[in-house]
Amino acid sequence: MAASGFVYKLIPLVRGRLRGRTSCPARIPVRAFSCTASRSQLHSVEGTGGPLAGKVDRFGGVTVNLADIGLPADISECLFSTLLQESLVQWKAEGKVAVWLRVPISLSRCAAAASTHGFTFHHATHDHAVLSLWLGEGESRLPGFATHQVGVAGAVVDESNGKVLVVQDRNKTKNAWKFPGGLSDPGENIGVTAVREVFEETGVRSEFRSLLSIRQQHNHPGAFGMSDMYIICRLSPLTYDINFCTQECLRCEWLDLAELAKTNDTTPITSRVARLLLHGLERGFGEIDLSMEELPAVYSGMFYQLYHRQLPPTSKS
Amino acid sequence: MAASGFVYKLIPLVRGRLRGRTSCPARIPVRAFSCTASRSQLHSVEGTGGPLAGKVDRFGGVTVNLADIGLPADISECLFSTLLQESLVQWKAEGKVAVWLRVPISLSRCAAAASTHGFTFHHATHDHAVLSLWLGEGESRLPGFATHQVGVAGAVVDESNGKVLVVQDRNKTKNAWKFPGGLSDPGENIGVTAVREVFEETGVRSEFRSLLSIRQQHNHPGAFGMSDMYIICRLSPLTYDINFCTQECLRCEWLDLAELAKTNDTTPITSRVARLLLHGLERGFGEIDLSMEELPAVYSGMFYQLYHRQLPPTSKS
Repeated sequence: MAASGFVYKLIPLVRGRLRGRTSCPARIPVRAFSCTASRSQLHSVEGTGGPLAGKVDRFGGVTVNLADIGLPADISECLFSTLLQESLVQWKAEGKVAVWLRVPISLSRCAAAASTHGFTFHHATHDHAVLSLWLGEGESRLPGFATHQVGVAGAVVDESNGKVLVVQDRNKTKNAWKFPGGLSDPGENIGVTAVREVFEETGVRSEFRSLLSIRQQHNHPGAFGMSDMYIICRLSPLTYDINFCTQECLRCEWLDLAELAKTNDTTPITSRVARLLLHGLERGFGEIDLSMEELPAVYSGMFYQLYHRQLPPTSKS
Repeated sequence: MAASGFVYKLIPLVRGRLRGRTSCPARIPVRAFSCTASRSQLHSVEGTGGPLAGKVDRFGGVTVNLADIGLPADISECLFSTLLQESLVQWKAEGKVAVWLRVPISLSRCAAAASTHGFTFHHATHDHAVLSLWLGEGESRLPGFATHQVGVAGAVVDESNGKVLVVQDRNKTKNAWKFPGGLSDPGENIGVTAVREVFEETGVRSEFRSLLSIRQQHNHPGAFGMSDMYIICRLSPLTYDINFCTQECLRCEWLDLAELAKTNDTTPITSRVARLLLHGLERGFGEIDLSMEELPAVYSGMFYQLYHRQLPPTSKS
């Protein structure tokens, strides 16, 4: 069904409703969308049903973008609920397995209406929310949304003297030495985050060498209850003068790796990575590194980053 | 300000409004929350202003949970917009740097009202959305929401014969051998996902050994435009009989690692990891593994998983 057909059907309905009085949801102190009156009105005005205009995907789901189907800006929860109800009947009859609703923030009242039909938020960002409803058999097989934030720290190692760049956070109760770092921006590669955060916190410029460790932690208080992936990279310094951010850091120093590996004034992970780095200094960083390679992504023409242990030179690459 | 105080202030306002006629937003074909009339009404009834009841965090942000402050279930966009506007004036005067609104899905119309004051969706899940507005100087310093989904595949290696468990997806154009895997459920550890997905797809039970490779990819079509972290683990088989899921897989076999490493009927990453595993079979898996250790999280009493190269036995652990 074309979007224009939907608009044609809807506009006279809304105009008719606005002229009436009994169906105005704001006049009755109940949930605004419990409106059987409006539903009969809908049928009397229009006569024919038909689903909201959506796109069907290869999994048998239908996606309706409420910004694209010509809904009046002031459509009521009541009326949208009725339209959605009729669409759901038809989608179920057609064997659709799921419905996705993309709701612009200005039409958020449609999300409330949809929730009375079982829709829940799948995700929301900036100016729109996406709701979903599973219509298929058994448990929902819909994929979830992003579950992890990614934090990256950079261990900048000066190989000439065995020192590493460390900071103490300003706003922590315990003044523990740690590697500078922070959250990845959306779409930012791990190594880029490490180099950026090191520079922002310490003023030291560096370049990415390898990935050293990964920590996974759930129900993270700094991640709105979601999961946190915290990655420590090995970096090489390009500059050495410290000019640290006094908003974020209390101290910033080039510290002996051996000292960092044995002090109690640090975090367990920092201590662990310090020992890894000491081992790397002595035996070669090849012992501790996951090296990175960029490979082309088949579908997008973009590149992805792949990290793993270096293959021996005798292997085909 | 206590939530009960807010309720006291609001209820008579709403009742007064419902008795009137001109301010019913459903009656005027304009954006429902452009209602200066209602605002003057607010002042005439109440006389005193006061912010929505919220909690102040250590960063100077205020969080208002709309489910906790006694809003009437049928509060209009117009009235909420007016209340929010007055609160914003006060929060700005108090030097608050940010406002977070937690909006139950049934009160979604309040999200539309908030958007007219500059609020945007920070995230949404299941039955509520969270909106945010930066009031501080310069660019927003609010942390973002989760950016990555995590997919995990398991390479189950039978060390007795050098074979590895591989599948071909049912719904792909190219029938490439790959390791069974899928998306992590919320709160699920990497190794648990690998073992679960291998069993669901192939019927083979296995146990986690190590982490082998990590891929980071942005704007991922299967991740609603977000980023994807794809992790391959090494697993050891506990059972060997294949009973694969015909919904997901076209084929499932124990394949020679040497054959997988040289065939073209696979993906670049699978091929790469097959060569890593061959190297591990010959020289010991210690050459290719990131081993995992559980450590206690300081703040939560929970544990996190840390992956890095095994430290040599001579190091303190």
